Amino acid sequence: MSLVSAQTVATHNSSESCWIIVHGKVYDVTEFLSEHPGGSKIILKYAGADATEAYEPIHPPDAITTNLPIEKHIGTIDPNTVVKAIKQVTEEDRRRQALLDARPPVDEMLNLHDFEAVAKAVLPAKAWAYYSSGGEDEITIRENRAAFQRVWFRPRVLRDVSHVDWSHIILGQKSSMPVYISATALGKLGHPDGELNVTRAAGKHGVIQMSLDQIPTLASCSFDEIVDAAQPGQPLFLQLYVNRDREITKRYVQHAEKRGIKALFITVDAPQLGRREKDMRMKVVDDNGTAKVQDGQQDVKKNEGISRAISSFIDPSLSWKDMAWFRSITNMPIILKGIATPEDALLAYDAGVQGIVLSNHGGRQLDTSFSGLENLPPIIAALKTRGPWPNPNFSVFVDGGVRRASDVLKALALGASAVGIGRGFLYSFCAYGQEGVEKAIQILHDEFQMNMRLIGARSINEIVAEMVDASALSSRVGLPPIDNLYNDTCESTSFNSTIQE
Amino acid sequence: MSLVSAQTVATHNSSESCWIIVHGKVYDVTEFLSEHPGGSKIILKYAGADATEAYEPIHPPDAITTNLPIEKHIGTIDPNTVVKAIKQVTEEDRRRQALLDARPPVDEMLNLHDFEAVAKAVLPAKAWAYYSSGGEDEITIRENRAAFQRVWFRPRVLRDVSHVDWSHIILGQKSSMPVYISATALGKLGHPDGELNVTRAAGKHGVIQMSLDQIPTLASCSFDEIVDAAQPGQPLFLQLYVNRDREITKRYVQHAEKRGIKALFITVDAPQLGRREKDMRMKVVDDNGTAKVQDGQQDVKKNEGISRAISSFIDPSLSWKDMAWFRSITNMPIILKGIATPEDALLAYDAGVQGIVLSNHGGRQLDTSFSGLENLPPIIAALKTRGPWPNPNFSVFVDGGVRRASDVLKALALGASAVGIGRGFLYSFCAYGQEGVEKAIQILHDEFQMNMRLIGARSINEIVAEMVDASALSSRVGLPPIDNLYNDTCESTSFNSTIQE
Amino acid sequence: MSLVSAQTVATHNSSESCWIIVHGKVYDVTEFLSEHPGGSKIILKYAGADATEAYEPIHPPDAITTNLPIEKHIGTIDPNTVVKAIKQVTEEDRRRQALLDARPPVDEMLNLHDFEAVAKAVLPAKAWAYYSSGGEDEITIRENRAAFQRVWFRPRVLRDVSHVDWSHIILGQKSSMPVYISATALGKLGHPDGELNVTRAAGKHGVIQMSLDQIPTLASCSFDEIVDAAQPGQPLFLQLYVNRDREITKRYVQHAEKRGIKALFITVDAPQLGRREKDMRMKVVDDNGTAKVQDGQQDVKKNEGISRAISSFIDPSLSWKDMAWFRSITNMPIILKGIATPEDALLAYDAGVQGIVLSNHGGRQLDTSFSGLENLPPIIAALKTRGPWPNPNFSVFVDGGVRRASDVLKALALGASAVGIGRGFLYSFCAYGQEGVEKAIQILHDEFQMNMRLIGARSINEIVAEMVDASALSSRVGLPPIDNLYNDTCESTSFNSTIQE
Amino acid sequence: MSLVSAQTVATHNSSESCWIIVHGKVYDVTEFLSEHPGGSKIILKYAGADATEAYEPIHPPDAITTNLPIEKHIGTIDPNTVVKAIKQVTEEDRRRQALLDARPPVDEMLNLHDFEAVAKAVLPAKAWAYYSSGGEDEITIRENRAAFQRVWFRPRVLRDVSHVDWSHIILGQKSSMPVYISATALGKLGHPDGELNVTRAAGKHGVIQMSLDQIPTLASCSFDEIVDAAQPGQPLFLQLYVNRDREITKRYVQHAEKRGIKALFITVDAPQLGRREKDMRMKVVDDNGTAKVQDGQQDVKKNEGISRAISSFIDPSLSWKDMAWFRSITNMPIILKGIATPEDALLAYDAGVQGIVLSNHGGRQLDTSFSGLENLPPIIAALKTRGPWPNPNFSVFVDGGVRRASDVLKALALGASAVGIGRGFLYSFCAYGQEGVEKAIQILHDEFQMNMRLIGARSINEIVAEMVDASALSSRVGLPPIDNLYNDTCESTSFNSTIQE
Repeated sequence: MSLVSAQTVATHNSSESCWIIVHGKVYDVTEFLSEHPGGSKIILKYAGADATEAYEPIHPPDAITTNLPIEKHIGTIDPNTVVKAIKQVTEEDRRRQALLDARPPVDEMLNLHDFEAVAKAVLPAKAWAYYSSGGEDEITIRENRAAFQRVWFRPRVLRDVSHVDWSHIILGQKSSMPVYISATALGKLGHPDGELNVTRAAGKHGVIQMSLDQIPTLASCSFDEIVDAAQPGQPLFLQLYVNRDREITKRYVQHAEKRGIKALFITVDAPQLGRREKDMRMKVVDDNGTAKVQDGQQDVKKNEGISRAISSFIDPSLSWKDMAWFRSITNMPIILKGIATPEDALLAYDAGVQGIVLSNHGGRQLDTSFSGLENLPPIIAALKTRGPWPNPNFSVFVDGGVRRASDVLKALALGASAVGIGRGFLYSFCAYGQEGVEKAIQILHDEFQMNMRLIGARSINEIVAEMVDASALSSRVGLPPIDNLYNDTCESTSFNSTIQE
Repeated sequence: MSLVSAQTVATHNSSESCWIIVHGKVYDVTEFLSEHPGGSKIILKYAGADATEAYEPIHPPDAITTNLPIEKHIGTIDPNTVVKAIKQVTEEDRRRQALLDARPPVDEMLNLHDFEAVAKAVLPAKAWAYYSSGGEDEITIRENRAAFQRVWFRPRVLRDVSHVDWSHIILGQKSSMPVYISATALGKLGHPDGELNVTRAAGKHGVIQMSLDQIPTLASCSFDEIVDAAQPGQPLFLQLYVNRDREITKRYVQHAEKRGIKALFITVDAPQLGRREKDMRMKVVDDNGTAKVQDGQQDVKKNEGISRAISSFIDPSLSWKDMAWFRSITNMPIILKGIATPEDALLAYDAGVQGIVLSNHGGRQLDTSFSGLENLPPIIAALKTRGPWPNPNFSVFVDGGVRRASDVLKALALGASAVGIGRGFLYSFCAYGQEGVEKAIQILHDEFQMNMRLIGARSINEIVAEMVDASALSSRVGLPPIDNLYNDTCESTSFNSTIQE
Repeated sequence: MSLVSAQTVATHNSSESCWIIVHGKVYDVTEFLSEHPGGSKIILKYAGADATEAYEPIHPPDAITTNLPIEKHIGTIDPNTVVKAIKQVTEEDRRRQALLDARPPVDEMLNLHDFEAVAKAVLPAKAWAYYSSGGEDEITIRENRAAFQRVWFRPRVLRDVSHVDWSHIILGQKSSMPVYISATALGKLGHPDGELNVTRAAGKHGVIQMSLDQIPTLASCSFDEIVDAAQPGQPLFLQLYVNRDREITKRYVQHAEKRGIKALFITVDAPQLGRREKDMRMKVVDDNGTAKVQDGQQDVKKNEGISRAISSFIDPSLSWKDMAWFRSITNMPIILKGIATPEDALLAYDAGVQGIVLSNHGGRQLDTSFSGLENLPPIIAALKTRGPWPNPNFSVFVDGGVRRASDVLKALALGASAVGIGRGFLYSFCAYGQEGVEKAIQILHDEFQMNMRLIGARSINEIVAEMVDASALSSRVGLPPIDNLYNDTCESTSFNSTIQE
Repeated sequence: MSLVSAQTVATHNSSESCWIIVHGKVYDVTEFLSEHPGGSKIILKYAGADATEAYEPIHPPDAITTNLPIEKHIGTIDPNTVVKAIKQVTEEDRRRQALLDARPPVDEMLNLHDFEAVAKAVLPAKAWAYYSSGGEDEITIRENRAAFQRVWFRPRVLRDVSHVDWSHIILGQKSSMPVYISATALGKLGHPDGELNVTRAAGKHGVIQMSLDQIPTLASCSFDEIVDAAQPGQPLFLQLYVNRDREITKRYVQHAEKRGIKALFITVDAPQLGRREKDMRMKVVDDNGTAKVQDGQQDVKKNEGISRAISSFIDPSLSWKDMAWFRSITNMPIILKGIATPEDALLAYDAGVQGIVLSNHGGRQLDTSFSGLENLPPIIAALKTRGPWPNPNFSVFVDGGVRRASDVLKALALGASAVGIGRGFLYSFCAYGQEGVEKAIQILHDEFQMNMRLIGARSINEIVAEMVDASALSSRVGLPPIDNLYNDTCESTSFNSTIQE
């Protein structure tokens, strides 16, 4: 590739001709402007200049090369022509560094809530808004947590609990606990290494990570980066957003299978992204690159291009009819993520897929939908009409609001095959990187040991329905009027009090 | 009409002889003093002087000409005799203007709660008190909102939702959404153009507005003003307070029909105005013109005349017996607004009217009455005993507490024909005029699209009972202990935080 | 009676010989010291001096003459020997006067909560503590109010409500509303005229007052003072605490009957006074005369004499066996006040008394007992097993937590014969004297008119069970998490905000 | 024993050779370092020096002599060689003394909550954290209190309650009330005399105390100290944590029986200590001696030795199989403390033990387990399938959240044999020593008298199931949204307001 001078690049600084520099390479993105899922405005901000710093946290490294035809790859920037900008340390940078310096040692983290408290304190406001926001009035996201607090234990005593074992098999893969790590998006907003922190910690501790597919506006680490970071034989799952262009979808799926992915989770609860207004609000205020991810929901008049761009890759026409096709293109187990009713659970079963996730997308899609946990008992009851439960050929997973090993045990007692945790691990790397994820895993192990001993279960098999009382789950009586998540646990860390003073 | 000098007017400045100037005309209101629904005191304040500024926001322009016999129309004020008062800019004016200047751009409004937050911030305290107050302890007004949050969705997935359509037919009229705009009173307290903002926006976006009848103490825009502001063919409904003088009522109704009104909503839950104590309290403190609207509830000793005046136009004797007469004077569909029991719903059905509104008057009348939404399931069940539901000849509407398209979808799933929204649009024009109403409509469209996709309904027909779980509706379990309306959503607008600092 | 000089009195200043001056008379109370229900210490504080000011607010005028043998009435104080003490205006006096001056005009009172807010602001802390306190954790006192908010109206519309009539017959006596005024104690702590304010206002407005018997430590107005203040023919009821000495009880009862009392309410829920800890706490802090009323509950070691003194007049042995005797000594209807179970309601019915009051003593006795309203449905159901209801020979009253006419209507709909209101009127005279009580009555009349119109009942007879939904009453679901009593209504009076600034 | 000079001791100041001085004796703890349940670090802090002050509050006096082989008892410190350290009065000491000086007089304590408020104010933060903390999210500890507030009284009236008697027989022992004092740990953190305050007060007032066994890391008073402090014939119970070394357990049990202990309560709900995170958090912040008690739950990597040390004395293998052995080694009645299900209650009954305690360990073990009170009705129902109830040979006790005599009466009405109170008495001696415990007992007596009179029960036998309505207990409806424990009662003590100003 030929060398290009910074001066030449600088002349292509408009929508008529727009060149940008990313990672030392020069690209002509003029024709791509109207297709950019993040809108043209944000690219034009860097027209004729280096866009790397804005590009980095919200795109996988290969996003630009994958999406841009080879003839638009203009060349390599001539380093001699670049005027080294002295990176200005901003007030915001200083403030953030001070917060990071004030973090308590990772050893002081006692539960997964703690990571959330630290992450909230150290994250840029926008990243916190993006991660923590739920749909509309955020009733479902609150309900997700509350539901677990409405299931009570019926502990058995005087069993020999010298040895308790919570290792588990999930979709045929060994896991050190009955938990997998749900996929989360845009992890680089919170930590330079993004989801790779999870990959490394999961590999080290025998936990299974679900990774996002390669759709560039959602993942900030590319799929291949994650697979490359995994240890040999480390099991990974894939969460797929189905593309309107089924050829692209097919390519992704088959590439994933080739790279050793163990299961395919197809997102079925997001034909359109939910209104995450806390996030939208943040972006409206100070519009920059990260703002556009949610813009599909914005005023159509103003953001038509973006809206269309977003819709161009998530396919709202995805339906039961497509299931046979998926089965035809892969041998991976297929799991439908986002089932919420017994009716759809039976349709999934009858469609021949290998399982479902009872999920409301972390409360980020349809508000006032039930928690996955609340949907669990009626769905298990429905599946029992198809044969004995548990069924070795069909798995039912649950996610949403899980913060404690005790939450996981409750879901298992109610019939779940395993449980997904997303934000808990996301916040742990936002707060402490890989070390945070490892600590979070360790905390869960400690909690599993203690709680299994205290309920009198020595293995996953011994966690039976009689060990919980879920009568308040669907009646929703006894919703704790105080949110222990923030008020009790997190707000009393020494770290917070230091910050507040 | 003869010219009258300001000096002459000034001599008629007592209850013995009381002339006032309104819109450049001189009126002798001496004999009207005791009949003024707002009391004589407020008129006497302007005796012998120009009352236009006090008159304007709470009377339709034609109120004085309609109510005063022609012989009391003295003449036109001689402009040369008027000493131009230099309008003093008060501290209050300045404060209000500063608040208006500090409003966030209308584009930052993300939901209907946002308009409420902005309206609360910019409205004069009295207007806010008048609009937002509910009856007595305000339990019903709170319940109206909470009821929607106790209905949960049962979303269906993997349906092809590429195209979703929420346009609807309401009482034979086309509507771009299954929503009509409920009538609200005294809109000019909040915006100089009052309810005309709604008329113009509704016409532009294909939404049906319900307007108030011409009773002067309630409407600040006259009925004809609103009809005149409508586009050709724009459908309008009329909400009627039945006058003791049935001839006046007949005249109103037939005039409305002649002007093309498409349906007559008869108010049946207000034989007497409710005790809206927040509003009463405000007025007691600083008594001026607007204060008297509610004074009918005040100490009879002191305000006897006013009390009687108010009672003189709302007829507490209105009863089922009158329904045949109404059917005899108009061909418009007749809808009874304010039904709250299955018993009365069946009486309405049997009386041959075309529908009912399950309403508690926005929580402004009888406190601790149920929300319309809670009354919906038993009333639909009762109506099913008369034949299949939905019934093309009988409509059941619901209003009260609606802020989201998802609220509307819940009511439809439970059997409602369409849903009324009042305060949501009122606050939108108080905050931003016509542009606010248009934005509010756009937001609802966005929410309809997203929510219909997420619940798996492609048209209004596909919104079925199985899509909601209303088991908590009548048990009232799970009332969210935090009011998301203010705490979560609104208080985090950048606007508020700006104001507060 | 002979003249006694102040100097002579001053020499009898110890427990060996203790003389005091009350209302210009000199008494030798040496032997009475150990019997004084308020303890000897408080008397000794005034030994040899004038005790009138301390005596006044907590004793009826004739308490000392009634309780002290005639030979201890030493004589009249010689006015020439008295050194006129210049009454020091204390800081506390000044503060209280400032609060009274800052009261809003009585016309601004819009509901009974308002009087409570004003009373709280202007009352001495001790008086507020005495009036407002409930038993132990104050759960029942809170529940009393909350219970009414769990009963919902089922209003009927389109009835001709031109004329609504809420006058009523209570135990054969005409009343302008279905409400009587419950007896309260120590009213002079809050207003110099004490309960006489109620007597005068009740007489003027046709409402029935219940007065306390003559037991000196509870009433601050004597029974005869109240009867004397009543208008000719004004009906009064009597609440009796049964004395261990049945002869005293008999004397009281027959005296009351002779003076025209219309019904005898026998207290059955107070064999011992409840632990009203808010009140106890106040008194512990600054011990003076008023402190001793509650001291029966205090540490026996320290206050043995007082404890015994209190127990000496309330008889814990009162039982069903005594009912025949009561019937033998009076022809007044006998009502048992404080029934809480269907079992006891039937025992009362079978004992031949004329009625019962479902009461928990304003939440001041047994904590976590149900509200009278919650006990109403099962008790009416039980009484129906004895014959048709309503029963002309047996009345069921309810009290506790009533603040609104709508509360009264709910109780009537559930079967109550009438409703007692105590604190509402107590606070109205603490705030504004007789005028306050009259205003409170007027407010209730306004509320009755409006609420009866809004529920569609034109007379007490038309208030039927179908007009309320009490399903949440016993389930206790939907307890409003916010106490509207203080937070919403009262705290927004202009008066409070003035005080707070 | 030989005299040892301070200089000699000072040379043994490392992990190679570690001597310490306790109570004037010199010990070689080098080999014990790795076995110390509190970890080696805290001992090494005092290596070569006097450790008495750190040792005192968290070890029974004989802990070191019991645990260290006699050959490690080096000798007596030569007092002439000790440089008298002038005890520095720290800022913390001064602050604490000021708080103690500001305590209200003990006579102002009106209920058991009050002691908690004072204790919270005067205790070192660490001690408060240790005593007050519950497991994980502290839902169960909150539920323990709330459960009692969901049981309502059905009081009976007009019974002769002149004489009421609440004395009781508990496991064959006379008690002045139907309450025993539950064992608590580390009392010396809160008061120099620790649990001996309880022993002395209990003996004086005829109440039975349960003491902890001799496991050194939990008790701060030794078992024998407590027995020695008891009066002749004063009944005591023993709570046992079963040691992995059954010989040690046997020795403890038989020693206890020999010393006259009347019943053996075997802890069955703590195979591992719960995560009391409030406590863990406190310790992490400022690590010293007291920190290590909970460290078994900490990061294993860092605290492996400690973790193992803790596990070395509590035996997680304890099971039903061991019950026969226990019966074989003692004639004391055996009670299983920590039963939570009917299933286990029946197993206990069938295992031939003499009773069970329905307990969740004060909310300190398994979080979201039910309160003992909620478990009571189903467990009594289950036991009734084995024969009539009450059963003279099998007792069912309840503890957790008890603060009022009325709580006790509710548990008795629901079938409990007696009730345990722990923290209530712990806080009373933390606040006022022995006098506090005596006052707490007196308050309970006062409450028993009043409440029994008010519910109409003259003896424990008359407290029957019909006297309570427990329908809300298992539905958990009506959880008071305000915690009266702190908000209402305690926060209004004059003491607190003094402190806060």
